Amino acid sequence: MSTNTYAVTGMSCGHCENAVREEVEQLDGVRVTHVSAAEGSLVVENPHDISDVDIIAAVDEAGYTATRTS
Amino acid sequence: MSTNTYAVTGMSCGHCENAVREEVEQLDGVRVTHVSAAEGSLVVENPHDISDVDIIAAVDEAGYTATRTS
Repeated sequence: MSTNTYAVTGMSCGHCENAVREEVEQLDGVRVTHVSAAEGSLVVENPHDISDVDIIAAVDEAGYTATRTS
Repeated sequence: MSTNTYAVTGMSCGHCENAVREEVEQLDGVRVTHVSAAEGSLVVENPHDISDVDIIAAVDEAGYTATRTS
């Protein structure tokens, strides 16, 4: 189980947060523990060590841009 | 058939526009012809002359505040 944090640009409201959450949680086992438009942040639990590339691609699919920060 | 314009505060993105559109179009016959977060505007065709109170209530239900401007 790893916990990864990403900076996400472009989210402006709760709808945006939900869009990111729904897209990222389609990845196997991934759970969003925190997502904030105000902070521009996303924290996920990633039990199967899905790659950053895939997580960042899911955020992109939702319409936003993510970079891994920790 | 009347066409009504409203100023809407609080919309920040396309998800917000969709939320307003979906709620307002639940009113009988009402069709959104324009909605813009950037402009803070909403234009509806209102063939059955549904009251402003009801249209403003629908926007409120979506989470935003509308006032009739024309």
